[in-house]
Amino acid sequence: MSEVNIRWMAREMKLSISTISKALNDSHEISIETKRKVLELANQLHYTPNPYASSLRRKKSNTIAIVIPEVADSYFSLAINGIETVAMEKEYHVIVYLTHENAEREASILKDLSSGRVDGVLMSVSSETENFGPLKELHARKIPIVFFDRICEEIPTATVTTNDFESGYSAAKHLMDCGCKKITYLSISNQLSIINTRMEGYKKAIADEGNDMLLAEVVQCSNEAPNTKSMIRELLLQEDRPDGIIASVEKLATPVYENCHEIGIHIPNQLKMICFSNLTTATILNPPLTTITQPAFDMGKTAAEILFKALTKRNYILKDQHIVIPSELIIRTSAFIKVSA
Amino acid sequence: MSEVNIRWMAREMKLSISTISKALNDSHEISIETKRKVLELANQLHYTPNPYASSLRRKKSNTIAIVIPEVADSYFSLAINGIETVAMEKEYHVIVYLTHENAEREASILKDLSSGRVDGVLMSVSSETENFGPLKELHARKIPIVFFDRICEEIPTATVTTNDFESGYSAAKHLMDCGCKKITYLSISNQLSIINTRMEGYKKAIADEGNDMLLAEVVQCSNEAPNTKSMIRELLLQEDRPDGIIASVEKLATPVYENCHEIGIHIPNQLKMICFSNLTTATILNPPLTTITQPAFDMGKTAAEILFKALTKRNYILKDQHIVIPSELIIRTSAFIKVSA
Repeated sequence: MSEVNIRWMAREMKLSISTISKALNDSHEISIETKRKVLELANQLHYTPNPYASSLRRKKSNTIAIVIPEVADSYFSLAINGIETVAMEKEYHVIVYLTHENAEREASILKDLSSGRVDGVLMSVSSETENFGPLKELHARKIPIVFFDRICEEIPTATVTTNDFESGYSAAKHLMDCGCKKITYLSISNQLSIINTRMEGYKKAIADEGNDMLLAEVVQCSNEAPNTKSMIRELLLQEDRPDGIIASVEKLATPVYENCHEIGIHIPNQLKMICFSNLTTATILNPPLTTITQPAFDMGKTAAEILFKALTKRNYILKDQHIVIPSELIIRTSAFIKVSA
Repeated sequence: MSEVNIRWMAREMKLSISTISKALNDSHEISIETKRKVLELANQLHYTPNPYASSLRRKKSNTIAIVIPEVADSYFSLAINGIETVAMEKEYHVIVYLTHENAEREASILKDLSSGRVDGVLMSVSSETENFGPLKELHARKIPIVFFDRICEEIPTATVTTNDFESGYSAAKHLMDCGCKKITYLSISNQLSIINTRMEGYKKAIADEGNDMLLAEVVQCSNEAPNTKSMIRELLLQEDRPDGIIASVEKLATPVYENCHEIGIHIPNQLKMICFSNLTTATILNPPLTTITQPAFDMGKTAAEILFKALTKRNYILKDQHIVIPSELIIRTSAFIKVSA
């Protein structure tokens, strides 16, 4: 019940504001008779306990939001599982909002969250976000935010990431060790920090090798599947096509494999491939896919643990928390080192 | 802003209640100067437009909830996309709740939703739900519910399903046409209507063939991946192992394939397999997987369209809406008919 309502009731009932407030909170200091009268008037004012009203009073919804681009990527479904393990223990509800890599939709979701629908937000930024205004607004409203995987450097808050630079480096290094002479990096967004960081690692590994010929190119794929498939087809039909590919996101695995099968390029004999992926089907692909596998579950779990600390501990400084959990190169058939006899 | 606040403001500003109300609603009847003063006072009272407060007034959250078991299954991520196309057009927010096939968690979510957090609910029931009390409670509160894929027959409301019986039938029929003599159905839950309906279709197809020997068995798999893998291993190590498998859900594909690869059972020569699945990697598996593919996107879209009709049309009878959209048998290498010369 708002301060104004209480003030108005106090005036109407010729009681002190504190008496009204205590009566509404069922304080033992107030007589039963007074409580009855106060509640009667409150009822006339259509005062009813209600989860919305009660959220306004307590500033607590017992709900946290996960804002992510999509759920078709195994990384996110695993990260959600990690988050939910923690939330369930705390008896919080988790709601998931999907931005579909669309900056406008993301902005609309953040605006909705700014009004206090949830107690805290766990977020992985859309690949198309260029305007961080809505995120800044959410942050300004003191709703705790923890970024995981895809962060926004302009917001001073906690981050849980993996070692994207090192992973890009070790992917390129592994392909060189496998004998690749021309390694292409398949990117998907210019804005997305993690994709670019992985790319920097790849470039550095090749620079360290001191052979510029190795650096084939970076191909910008699209978020639309049919476009991506034809872009990769074009790449693989070139006479000087790459003999090694690093795919920066999971959804690039299928179009690369499909094109190779259709054109008749043998993986790994003619093309070696490493994909950043948490696909459960990686082991049963033709051939099994060598992956950089992110600690998705642990990243989600850690991000949630940090968020709950912010929700429960006084003076917990979110912006001091930056956790990096390393990814793992899992070598399968699509890129492995042949030991010659 | 509550009636009491408006009354209090009217008294303070010596204006009529209707003037205050109109000023707050930016009516053209009110002068700019008056609006400015009213807004100034409203600001002093910490009046900010707020979706909760505004939900209380309008009884509308402009949000719909999707309640589903998981997002690791491609069916659900595609269905979400279908739902979101419709919701975006209507300028509604979509929030996703995951039950993780856990009846208790589902009950807690439904309880939360019963308090009016959203305007409507799109739901696919958890495989472990036996007590439909929380669903009945939500329904009794007149919050429109549309079931898609996994329905609850005890709630008289709209359903969007696929032809599970016919799909189970045609999966079994196809395996028999491929020459299978012993077909096992991998189930995952006793409670889940769709899994059982698919199984009934499978049993009917075999009964129609008039050869009981074909009906190998139904194996109950677990929702826990390691258990499932070892159960399937045991099945495939039997001397009289099946030569055909129908996997009732997508997550059974990986353990069947992995076991076959490990034991050395050739798919499709020694074992033919059909899986109910929307996996985007089905084409690049070793071998490509024959699937019963559900019209996931369309089912989600149709369910959302029905829900929005219930939200906007008076006297729209939800319980009369039962849409069935057929699935498709997509024949790939894991089960195909060899044409002899």
